[in-house]
Amino acid sequence: MAAVLRGSLCLVGRCRKHVDFACVFTRSMASKTQVGFVGLGNMGNPMAKNLLKHGYPVIATDVFPESCKEVQELGAQIVDNPAEVADKADRIITMLPSSPNVIDVYTGPNGILKKVKKGSLLIDSSTIDPSVSKEMAAAALKLGAVFMDAPVSGGVGAASSGKLTFMVGGVEEEFTAAKELLSCMGANVVYCGQVGTGQAAKICNNMLLAIGMIGTSETMNLGIRLGLDPKLLAKILNMSSGRCWSSDTYNPVPGVMEGVPSGNNYQGGFGTQLMAKDLGLAQNTATNTRTPVPLGSLAHQIYRMMCARGYANKDFSSVFQFLREEEGQ
Amino acid sequence: MAAVLRGSLCLVGRCRKHVDFACVFTRSMASKTQVGFVGLGNMGNPMAKNLLKHGYPVIATDVFPESCKEVQELGAQIVDNPAEVADKADRIITMLPSSPNVIDVYTGPNGILKKVKKGSLLIDSSTIDPSVSKEMAAAALKLGAVFMDAPVSGGVGAASSGKLTFMVGGVEEEFTAAKELLSCMGANVVYCGQVGTGQAAKICNNMLLAIGMIGTSETMNLGIRLGLDPKLLAKILNMSSGRCWSSDTYNPVPGVMEGVPSGNNYQGGFGTQLMAKDLGLAQNTATNTRTPVPLGSLAHQIYRMMCARGYANKDFSSVFQFLREEEGQ
Amino acid sequence: MAAVLRGSLCLVGRCRKHVDFACVFTRSMASKTQVGFVGLGNMGNPMAKNLLKHGYPVIATDVFPESCKEVQELGAQIVDNPAEVADKADRIITMLPSSPNVIDVYTGPNGILKKVKKGSLLIDSSTIDPSVSKEMAAAALKLGAVFMDAPVSGGVGAASSGKLTFMVGGVEEEFTAAKELLSCMGANVVYCGQVGTGQAAKICNNMLLAIGMIGTSETMNLGIRLGLDPKLLAKILNMSSGRCWSSDTYNPVPGVMEGVPSGNNYQGGFGTQLMAKDLGLAQNTATNTRTPVPLGSLAHQIYRMMCARGYANKDFSSVFQFLREEEGQ
Amino acid sequence: MAAVLRGSLCLVGRCRKHVDFACVFTRSMASKTQVGFVGLGNMGNPMAKNLLKHGYPVIATDVFPESCKEVQELGAQIVDNPAEVADKADRIITMLPSSPNVIDVYTGPNGILKKVKKGSLLIDSSTIDPSVSKEMAAAALKLGAVFMDAPVSGGVGAASSGKLTFMVGGVEEEFTAAKELLSCMGANVVYCGQVGTGQAAKICNNMLLAIGMIGTSETMNLGIRLGLDPKLLAKILNMSSGRCWSSDTYNPVPGVMEGVPSGNNYQGGFGTQLMAKDLGLAQNTATNTRTPVPLGSLAHQIYRMMCARGYANKDFSSVFQFLREEEGQ
Repeated sequence: MAAVLRGSLCLVGRCRKHVDFACVFTRSMASKTQVGFVGLGNMGNPMAKNLLKHGYPVIATDVFPESCKEVQELGAQIVDNPAEVADKADRIITMLPSSPNVIDVYTGPNGILKKVKKGSLLIDSSTIDPSVSKEMAAAALKLGAVFMDAPVSGGVGAASSGKLTFMVGGVEEEFTAAKELLSCMGANVVYCGQVGTGQAAKICNNMLLAIGMIGTSETMNLGIRLGLDPKLLAKILNMSSGRCWSSDTYNPVPGVMEGVPSGNNYQGGFGTQLMAKDLGLAQNTATNTRTPVPLGSLAHQIYRMMCARGYANKDFSSVFQFLREEEGQ
Repeated sequence: MAAVLRGSLCLVGRCRKHVDFACVFTRSMASKTQVGFVGLGNMGNPMAKNLLKHGYPVIATDVFPESCKEVQELGAQIVDNPAEVADKADRIITMLPSSPNVIDVYTGPNGILKKVKKGSLLIDSSTIDPSVSKEMAAAALKLGAVFMDAPVSGGVGAASSGKLTFMVGGVEEEFTAAKELLSCMGANVVYCGQVGTGQAAKICNNMLLAIGMIGTSETMNLGIRLGLDPKLLAKILNMSSGRCWSSDTYNPVPGVMEGVPSGNNYQGGFGTQLMAKDLGLAQNTATNTRTPVPLGSLAHQIYRMMCARGYANKDFSSVFQFLREEEGQ
Repeated sequence: MAAVLRGSLCLVGRCRKHVDFACVFTRSMASKTQVGFVGLGNMGNPMAKNLLKHGYPVIATDVFPESCKEVQELGAQIVDNPAEVADKADRIITMLPSSPNVIDVYTGPNGILKKVKKGSLLIDSSTIDPSVSKEMAAAALKLGAVFMDAPVSGGVGAASSGKLTFMVGGVEEEFTAAKELLSCMGANVVYCGQVGTGQAAKICNNMLLAIGMIGTSETMNLGIRLGLDPKLLAKILNMSSGRCWSSDTYNPVPGVMEGVPSGNNYQGGFGTQLMAKDLGLAQNTATNTRTPVPLGSLAHQIYRMMCARGYANKDFSSVFQFLREEEGQ
Repeated sequence: MAAVLRGSLCLVGRCRKHVDFACVFTRSMASKTQVGFVGLGNMGNPMAKNLLKHGYPVIATDVFPESCKEVQELGAQIVDNPAEVADKADRIITMLPSSPNVIDVYTGPNGILKKVKKGSLLIDSSTIDPSVSKEMAAAALKLGAVFMDAPVSGGVGAASSGKLTFMVGGVEEEFTAAKELLSCMGANVVYCGQVGTGQAAKICNNMLLAIGMIGTSETMNLGIRLGLDPKLLAKILNMSSGRCWSSDTYNPVPGVMEGVPSGNNYQGGFGTQLMAKDLGLAQNTATNTRTPVPLGSLAHQIYRMMCARGYANKDFSSVFQFLREEEGQ
């Protein structure tokens, strides 16, 4: 359907197959034409660089001009606002902190939709409420453009090395076109379903991750107090039904594993504040869909309490430290 | 120390090394001497059969005489009570439903300790409060016997096929002797540390398991309501940081995996009531050691609510069904 | 400030005092001029009747025409949509189920703001997200009108007998004018602060109410299982520090008190589904303001689980029944 | 039944009524005979003083000899251990920190039951697990003595001024005799039912109290962040269905009320650690009786987390501070 809307780009005809083929053809041929990029923060910056590295001319903008310097030096063209990006590129990637920013960048007075061209492909990699993704998609569709949500898993490191995982929601016919670009920045690009399902998958994963991390921290703490050696306990859990990513890959107890934040005073990694934000999104979607999420909800509250008690910028595995008795008690 | 207490069994002398060697030697040579078994329920029955299958003469008892028939037909000698078992065997395995049963079988008027011989090895495979294991060990030690806790993971199926995992707590010098017997009934025998740590490991694993299962159920339910296909969501979680045993091995959503209780109306498997019992143990040990376990505690309450609402005998993965909206709502 | 915006209504001058006086004067004199009413549901219907009873001519509308019959027979003038109400009345009360309805009734194509007159007083008694109240107030202000939020506590009974409590947020200068109308429908009219604080007060109260109700239910259930007589336990709690509205005024245990839903199979009263909705609002505002509300959050989840298990239309005190073991277990 | 056991004290006859009458008569006449007191801590000390003040000769003991000095100076006779107290007094009150202490004081090698006289009345005012109270009562009964549980509500201040509330469990026939003594130390003496129900009532009250306090703290914090004045919010809650003891008598927000710990940096009052202990008891009894207590359980975990984070000795209303964002965040 979306493809039909971009019929003006198609050379061959009206039948669905032709349209699609034509679009893909056009895009493939056009693959080194300009790509727009809005949002050059900690994540957006390395992502845009990877596009440049793959030979794509990049037209970029950010509300903070200084964020644009690095990519500008690498050859990107910097413009004043999202509308100008949309004026010059028909494939645009956005990477923004939260729902209000996305709403503003797309539908604001200088937003993408002010100058978006028919047939444009708009890919939003922000982690936001899936209902906002749906709104943006509907608004884009009215102007003949396609909006897809494609949030990422993986942090700044994965963004730099091009190893992100993208979870993509939107019309299936456009997935190939989206994947072409996203593959420059990520190792996995997974199609999740209709628009919003990329966000849904991301939110679901992070909710279960938070539950697993707090659960692992409680369990390790309890076991240690009951006289178990932490490394041995981790080994037992990992060969049993208690096994999870937080126990076998990112263990929160200092000394159990190497190369994880728990071994580095919980610095680096994925901040407690960011986890709290994602759990807030999970909570909102659960509330809106009237879905009971008792552990997810409590996990949200625990990360919220941690933020209130000074853990906002520590890695989210520091919940082990939060639950452990203070020294001197 | 425990070995020294059993000095009367040793031929060579009083020095630690000789005693240990002699004991091990004696046990090894004596490996086909009688083994006592108390508790022939759903788990104890197949466990005792595996001992018989490995050539051990078994002396058994159970409060329900009819539970003894099967192993009697296979050659086990049935006696009236645990004290008589202790009178005839110096290696005894117990497999009982809960702490009060263990206390009674060991310290009751017809309990094992009434007739236990110096140097006996007593192995309790029940899942109970680790503080009770410690009490039993202390009481046994006064009589010159060694008590080890060795709870299992794996259900009736694993008990029948000899594939249980044993988590063993107690004096390390006796682990080899315990392992000799336990290996007849299990595929893994893991030494966990001092007495009680076997229970601790079991309880910790099951607490994290419960958290992971409820978390997976919430997450799958939320994802489905947000429009994700359940199989696809499971696949995404399993390649991401949300991965856990409940998502990749025992998925609670009907249709996602084969050969698990969710595919069979939550029959078979590990009952909600049993999980609630184990979570009660986890809660008790956490309370006693003043360890915060917020998610473990809520998991306990959720399984408790499920028991109150008719889920007691369904597999513990039925929490997915409990959280999902009733049809017709 | 709002008063200044309605300067065109004022005869005397621009100084603040005169403006206010003039407005109040105008309103007082005009007190029997028409009052608009949008939303004639279970609550709105008796509220509108009470306005009629106090001699106010009422101009009303509702999306369901049949909801208008009763007040029409009592003399209200029925119009087609909110815009027409605004065309004919400069004081309007709205009573709607949820935020989207409020947004539509005010800002939709046939919404109040399409024809609102400068200086109008718009009072919304719906229970909604305070951030939506703020948005509506800002939109009204641009058109020279004043919007106040005035959610109620008390159910259909209190609405019929004119005994509601109104919690009012908005510019303080307009409180007197609002109170004049609201007093016809309620026994208490409390000024809470700037716009949105009426909602905030309502949401806060209901969150604490839900926590108290579940807490009372757990406590009564535990006490009964420990051998206490329920009436005696209630009496002890009510003379001690466990006392709360749910224990002393609305006890959830059948037989403890008369005239409450627990004595009538949890029929009537305040439905579980409505409580779940209010707790969802509390959760949203807590998430948006990054406020930890662990018990409020769990209360939300419990009412959500109850909705999923068939309790949606029972009074919210039925949580006692939900937690109690099923008969036959 | 208990009265019959103490038949040797009775002069009149064997029929139940005569026995009871005789016993009561004997006790009444004997009211100024010696009363034993075990446990002279923060609470026991002022309680024993009140007995002295009412003219009762007191025989006391404590594991810490220095704790005995004050009451000794006031005329109490100090003996070496509980057994000696039982040797000299047939009415004994015990006030101890926790279950193991009670078990030791009653059944230990120098315990009360070693020398208790037939017909003695033993009143335990400690807050402990009701199942331990039942065990003690059964052990006393075998020796012809009556054990009653009579935990208190009210702190050191109420103990000093004789204003405690006693919740009493045990055989009803002995309540009058118990009340005679307890009335010297408390303003309210409430009969709760069979032995253990005094503890049950205490535990239930404190669980609901903790839930109410955390709920009030969350609610006040949320309301403040939503722009409400704390005093106004408290007032609104207190006239509405959110009202509870923690909102109207012991408000946790500094500045809302006078004369409560929140106005004094959460010093004095009822320590977080003590609340955590009582919630642990509630949790244990709930687990043992398989009663779901989701909010009580989470309240326990929150107070446990607070202990781990340095709040152990602050009043339990400091949960408001714990949940509030740290300054400088």
